[in-house]
Amino acid sequence: MAKLRWGMIGGGEGSQIGPAHRLGALADGMFELVAGALDHRPDVGREYAQRLGVAADRAYGNWQEMLAGEKGRDDRIDLVTIATPNSTHFEIAKAFLEAGFNVLCEKPMTMTVEEGEEIVRVAEASGKICAVNYCYSAYPMVRQARAMVRAGDIGKVRLVVTNFSHGHHGDATDADNPRVRWRYDPAMAGVSGQFADCGIHALHMASFICDDEVKSLSADMASTISSRELEDDAMVNFRMEGGTVGRLWTSSVAIGRQHGFDIQVFGETGGVRWASEQPNQLIYTPVGGRTQIIEKGEGGLHDEVQRLSRVAIAHPEGFPLAVANIYCDLADAIRGETRDGLPGASDGVRSIAAVHAAVASGKEDGAWKDARPPMFR
Amino acid sequence: MAKLRWGMIGGGEGSQIGPAHRLGALADGMFELVAGALDHRPDVGREYAQRLGVAADRAYGNWQEMLAGEKGRDDRIDLVTIATPNSTHFEIAKAFLEAGFNVLCEKPMTMTVEEGEEIVRVAEASGKICAVNYCYSAYPMVRQARAMVRAGDIGKVRLVVTNFSHGHHGDATDADNPRVRWRYDPAMAGVSGQFADCGIHALHMASFICDDEVKSLSADMASTISSRELEDDAMVNFRMEGGTVGRLWTSSVAIGRQHGFDIQVFGETGGVRWASEQPNQLIYTPVGGRTQIIEKGEGGLHDEVQRLSRVAIAHPEGFPLAVANIYCDLADAIRGETRDGLPGASDGVRSIAAVHAAVASGKEDGAWKDARPPMFR
Amino acid sequence: MAKLRWGMIGGGEGSQIGPAHRLGALADGMFELVAGALDHRPDVGREYAQRLGVAADRAYGNWQEMLAGEKGRDDRIDLVTIATPNSTHFEIAKAFLEAGFNVLCEKPMTMTVEEGEEIVRVAEASGKICAVNYCYSAYPMVRQARAMVRAGDIGKVRLVVTNFSHGHHGDATDADNPRVRWRYDPAMAGVSGQFADCGIHALHMASFICDDEVKSLSADMASTISSRELEDDAMVNFRMEGGTVGRLWTSSVAIGRQHGFDIQVFGETGGVRWASEQPNQLIYTPVGGRTQIIEKGEGGLHDEVQRLSRVAIAHPEGFPLAVANIYCDLADAIRGETRDGLPGASDGVRSIAAVHAAVASGKEDGAWKDARPPMFR
Amino acid sequence: MAKLRWGMIGGGEGSQIGPAHRLGALADGMFELVAGALDHRPDVGREYAQRLGVAADRAYGNWQEMLAGEKGRDDRIDLVTIATPNSTHFEIAKAFLEAGFNVLCEKPMTMTVEEGEEIVRVAEASGKICAVNYCYSAYPMVRQARAMVRAGDIGKVRLVVTNFSHGHHGDATDADNPRVRWRYDPAMAGVSGQFADCGIHALHMASFICDDEVKSLSADMASTISSRELEDDAMVNFRMEGGTVGRLWTSSVAIGRQHGFDIQVFGETGGVRWASEQPNQLIYTPVGGRTQIIEKGEGGLHDEVQRLSRVAIAHPEGFPLAVANIYCDLADAIRGETRDGLPGASDGVRSIAAVHAAVASGKEDGAWKDARPPMFR
Repeated sequence: MAKLRWGMIGGGEGSQIGPAHRLGALADGMFELVAGALDHRPDVGREYAQRLGVAADRAYGNWQEMLAGEKGRDDRIDLVTIATPNSTHFEIAKAFLEAGFNVLCEKPMTMTVEEGEEIVRVAEASGKICAVNYCYSAYPMVRQARAMVRAGDIGKVRLVVTNFSHGHHGDATDADNPRVRWRYDPAMAGVSGQFADCGIHALHMASFICDDEVKSLSADMASTISSRELEDDAMVNFRMEGGTVGRLWTSSVAIGRQHGFDIQVFGETGGVRWASEQPNQLIYTPVGGRTQIIEKGEGGLHDEVQRLSRVAIAHPEGFPLAVANIYCDLADAIRGETRDGLPGASDGVRSIAAVHAAVASGKEDGAWKDARPPMFR
Repeated sequence: MAKLRWGMIGGGEGSQIGPAHRLGALADGMFELVAGALDHRPDVGREYAQRLGVAADRAYGNWQEMLAGEKGRDDRIDLVTIATPNSTHFEIAKAFLEAGFNVLCEKPMTMTVEEGEEIVRVAEASGKICAVNYCYSAYPMVRQARAMVRAGDIGKVRLVVTNFSHGHHGDATDADNPRVRWRYDPAMAGVSGQFADCGIHALHMASFICDDEVKSLSADMASTISSRELEDDAMVNFRMEGGTVGRLWTSSVAIGRQHGFDIQVFGETGGVRWASEQPNQLIYTPVGGRTQIIEKGEGGLHDEVQRLSRVAIAHPEGFPLAVANIYCDLADAIRGETRDGLPGASDGVRSIAAVHAAVASGKEDGAWKDARPPMFR
Repeated sequence: MAKLRWGMIGGGEGSQIGPAHRLGALADGMFELVAGALDHRPDVGREYAQRLGVAADRAYGNWQEMLAGEKGRDDRIDLVTIATPNSTHFEIAKAFLEAGFNVLCEKPMTMTVEEGEEIVRVAEASGKICAVNYCYSAYPMVRQARAMVRAGDIGKVRLVVTNFSHGHHGDATDADNPRVRWRYDPAMAGVSGQFADCGIHALHMASFICDDEVKSLSADMASTISSRELEDDAMVNFRMEGGTVGRLWTSSVAIGRQHGFDIQVFGETGGVRWASEQPNQLIYTPVGGRTQIIEKGEGGLHDEVQRLSRVAIAHPEGFPLAVANIYCDLADAIRGETRDGLPGASDGVRSIAAVHAAVASGKEDGAWKDARPPMFR
Repeated sequence: MAKLRWGMIGGGEGSQIGPAHRLGALADGMFELVAGALDHRPDVGREYAQRLGVAADRAYGNWQEMLAGEKGRDDRIDLVTIATPNSTHFEIAKAFLEAGFNVLCEKPMTMTVEEGEEIVRVAEASGKICAVNYCYSAYPMVRQARAMVRAGDIGKVRLVVTNFSHGHHGDATDADNPRVRWRYDPAMAGVSGQFADCGIHALHMASFICDDEVKSLSADMASTISSRELEDDAMVNFRMEGGTVGRLWTSSVAIGRQHGFDIQVFGETGGVRWASEQPNQLIYTPVGGRTQIIEKGEGGLHDEVQRLSRVAIAHPEGFPLAVANIYCDLADAIRGETRDGLPGASDGVRSIAAVHAAVASGKEDGAWKDARPPMFR
């Protein structure tokens, strides 16, 4: 099977996100990097792309050049990944979709709900894929959790509780560090700090596993380091369309938590829980029964779980291969398979709407807000 | 050292709480059970008390008899434990305090804030001890956590996050079981279900470790099993007097959680966490440093921790000995030692006020409420 | 039910083992301490016994006085606990058994196999109970493991693997500390260091859960701190009468292990494992199935497990209450109930024989030795 | 940087090991698959190679063709991976080394010690790399453990204890399954079953982390499923050249263990432990101090650890990326960097010598044997 042609915007040398995407795209041999505009400094980006094996004529100085260049080619890229600063996602994604390219966009997909809805419309009109990188949902055991919920293994879902806490921004003496500071500065980060950064992963996962959408929410946003304008800690209560009660805590000042992203889903006949630091197990308890450990790679898991596992039981697969699973699904989808586990533009805009709802709620002492973008109300 | 004389009201044969108190009171040889009114059926209670070694003339048919009988004796009991149905705590505690007895009252201390404030006043006027059985705060490593916070080991506390979740009421087919049903019936349980039952343990512990008091709160109360009038799941956001942000989740429908009571406290220079299912360790992380495991029994712990540990490092001590620690502190306090770790009437009334504030908030879509009893505003 | 009368030899003020026995004996209100010879210094022992509530005439200066005094009383003690230095266990246990007292002896029961066999014969002739304090076998979930093995839940047992490792003697600069040094000095500790101290607990537990006896063994004994004459680390391979393969590692230089006592039992149709630092869970895996967590206090456990649990599911019970379970079984046995979980003199002598076999094997480069006392060959 | 040219022998469609190697070699973009003889059925192998993107003229029918074809090319492969049945490793590796190719050989490198020594000599004479795929040693935190030992962080190593247990061959009713049976059949597996399959990974890791070599050993080999000729459970005691005491348990009938590969190393001033199911943490305890959790990705780790980590702290990296680390080291070594963490032919022959020594010891009731190949005595 010929490899798909892949291009990347952003994710240049020294970025954290670039290597994760390259590893994800290349690991399974489904994609080949053939084009790139990797840095906001044109020369730097061109040079780095060539070092990564991109031909000189497809090592572009910026995304506009890349769009122009690729549009005209017969061997144009099959997929573009957008890993640029958040505020630029909208215009780049829109332009590439309109030109008929498949897109994988880093989260948050856009800064405003209006932009997000626009992307949904453009993607739909284009007939192209617009995926958003909620990569944690591609861990095999997260897929297993969703499959179990869909199969009714825990009955109607009553309650979902999810956390995404870390302590890496907990040192106030480090608050002026530019890598930390921008996150809490509205000029750079938009309306929300920690909730927009990490909380929306948790919110998406709640929707993903519960196979339902967030309808309304109430938020308590706190800047526990007082010099911060945006929140570094947030608690969001929510309700889903189907009535499920939701609780989501996210924090960047939880000193001692490294990557405390976990989720618990409780239904009428059982519960499941999963934690990102031990991603290869899913913990399941049937009502009235004993807690069981479900292992990635054991017999009898749902098909899509087996499809997204590479090595034998109890051989851990980690974060980079969760990203790779997004790319596997993308490759399949580009080739025409239905891959409904792939987070899309509607997921992207729902997250943005939830962020804005949470911020509004926080400012009104936790008043409940509609969490949906207008187009989905 | 002569044993102290101990009496008990309630906690008869077949109750869960009676054995825990007897084990707690007797384990360290500090108390001797010499009087009791153990059952609402006078004959049953008298007979059981005698089987437990109480002399016939001090095996009472009800608490009024016991009060009358003990009041007149030179060898009157040094302490009475009240382990009767919740709605009776107030009048019994009040009567015994007024008669000059030291009291250990099960939680909740009273049903209303007014009653709670009355107990505080009566206790103060009597000069006697009125303790409330927030026994989890007597685990050695919880005491260590408080001592570390007080010593400044984690700096000023920014955030406290605590959960008390279990799934033992998660089976809707079991909802008519009388042992479960009463908890969600306002006629028997009062204004709150799960929050009043378990949540206040977590709320007390937050105050206890942070060495601060809850000032205001906002609550989201949910009956995830729709036949329940009172909540089986609650999320409470709060603020402490010193500005600390608080998050508390409690649930009885979290299928798969057995006794999911844990707490995380995050300060300016570190964080600690503790979980009731592994009570002999405290997890500590200094800001910028590695996570460390502090073991009960290791060298260098705070004095009150060593005092409340009985066996060598890594030999676990469990729940019954946490209750025993309450009785150790009581014995010391009765003999005149200062034991400021002992939860008292003011803690009792603060809990009741928080329950009523949470219920009110829940009814007003999470509006923030003063969580304090009027006397402490 | 009247309390049983209890006496204690050794376990004076400042000892580690005295408090554990007192807590164990008193916790459930089954015994009352009425006699004692608690210290090798007669006056100190008498004074301390009286402080613990023993009457002056039963606060003895040494065990011979106690034997003489108790023998002549109508209200003689129902049980004597022997918690003196190891080398004295034999003569004290023998004398009390011969005089018709029930005995609980600390481990090791004796120093030599001959002495151990003598105790077995004396106990049998006396018709009295001679229990040995292998207290870890009294944890509820250890009893559950044995009951499951007996019920065939894991099929015929193929393999048992057990460890008892700690690192508390790992600091060579502390090697002259008298509390550490005696353990490795043959003049005080006998033929074996760490294996006799901790290893025999693990060996007993293997027999206990597998419901089988050790037949032969091969040992590798090492003094990793070279100044030690006796081993601080040992590996023992063994075979049981029924053919089960056994592996036992024990160490006192395993820095970072606190109380690393655990056991895994593997049979034809399943496996179970248990660890002393999380004693309230038993991990069970049926062949071809998922690993399950069995919780102390859950429904459906074997009767003797429920009998030895005091508080609700997921409320941990720790080491002191395992000791208390030994006393519960003793109280029942004294009253005539059959309590076959109680470790007895035959267990005691088997341990001693295994120690001597391991030492002999170690000296002969791991040659296999009969591990049984001659009387059981 | 141009990609290195890579070829593979064995690891065809449906094999477990092929995908692990391809993922490992391709993940970081260092190698490109340009040649292959992937299947013992020539046509099948050729077809599959082409599906993986290999040009038709380099899709070979067998390794002899591949050797002949590649030898003559200017763009010959830079590395060949040998993932064929164990008994063929020797002749293939020897032939490719002699022809001047770098080799990565699956374990066991050879079947006999003589063959192993021959490979060492051939590799040395060729000046080429002969690596052996002890991939677990390439987990970042295993490298950190070795670096800490080398830096003296735990002092002189006294004791190493390692296990590699699983239960996937524990079902006797599955014993005729060809995927299981061959492992215990000397005609196919050679002299050893479980020890040769899994145990040598543990033995290598002990040497790797301790930075020392195994000198002598004593083994207890057991076939707990009696129909098996070769052992399914083994305990190996050993001594290292530097005097370190070693213990190694390996089992394939440990029902409930999935991939129970872990190691503990205890030195004069501290201990470390690591487990393959949670590979991203290393647990470290300084003597007299608290246990600490060292996280992959935290600041201050040794350089080679940072070099082999791809994503941020607490984002797990799993088994496939440990294999990828072997390929990273290989790529560097091919380019002339010194990569002393790469297991080589001497490691390969040492393992074989240890296997033969263990088998001999097992047959002589655990007699101690020299574990070294003659060339290293």
